[in-house]
Amino acid sequence: MSEIALTTTTAGPFDAAAARVRDALSAQGFGVLTEIDVRATLNKKLGDGTGDEVGDYLILGACNPQFANRAVRLYPQIGVLLPCNVVLRRNPDSADTVVVEAMNPAMMVGVTGESALTEIADEVGGRLQAALASL
Amino acid sequence: MSEIALTTTTAGPFDAAAARVRDALSAQGFGVLTEIDVRATLNKKLGDGTGDEVGDYLILGACNPQFANRAVRLYPQIGVLLPCNVVLRRNPDSADTVVVEAMNPAMMVGVTGESALTEIADEVGGRLQAALASL
Repeated sequence: MSEIALTTTTAGPFDAAAARVRDALSAQGFGVLTEIDVRATLNKKLGDGTGDEVGDYLILGACNPQFANRAVRLYPQIGVLLPCNVVLRRNPDSADTVVVEAMNPAMMVGVTGESALTEIADEVGGRLQAALASL
Repeated sequence: MSEIALTTTTAGPFDAAAARVRDALSAQGFGVLTEIDVRATLNKKLGDGTGDEVGDYLILGACNPQFANRAVRLYPQIGVLLPCNVVLRRNPDSADTVVVEAMNPAMMVGVTGESALTEIADEVGGRLQAALASL
């Protein structure tokens, strides 16, 4: 079974790291279609003033149109796993750095059992890995 | 291995079905945080006038804040699979109906190997199933 995420760490502060991630994704042909500020969303809905709040946590929904198009035509149900999420979150081991994790596209092959997705997953995974490596 | 999606079909037209899905998710405690019109996005990026275009295809990112909060604290990496996507797409077998598929939260347990996510996945899966059944 593939790991669910490709992972790296990058220097903070958080907002600067997020800007670098967006640029790195763009350089590899990914648009960011969605953006969820998990910290703001959950603390707004659940915040109770006890201070037990969620820390910095951002989900970017990255999409390469060519590969998404091929994947949807090959396996229409794949949309439940699209776009490819890229998560930035506080590093529990170092306040100065940020954990950056991209959904591992190889997982799509594993969970669907659709070997025809392998080529797409390999190409998208390589680009996501390159984006993380460039941070 | 769990199926990647909980699936049903509902009557069209597409936009009316999408409105019913949003209402059904809301009734089960899910907010819709993101919405991707895959047809418009891909046809805008890739459209070449040949008519070989993607049909109706919508991805709603559904989130129940309580369960998302628990999942993120238990397994911070889980954000690569959040929010729970609910896909509406053209039914290849019937032009009058729409396929509605929700990401199966049980898959999260399988791909992470984190059995502590089982209770959350069961509860969220039950609510998504109830939303689909109410359509």
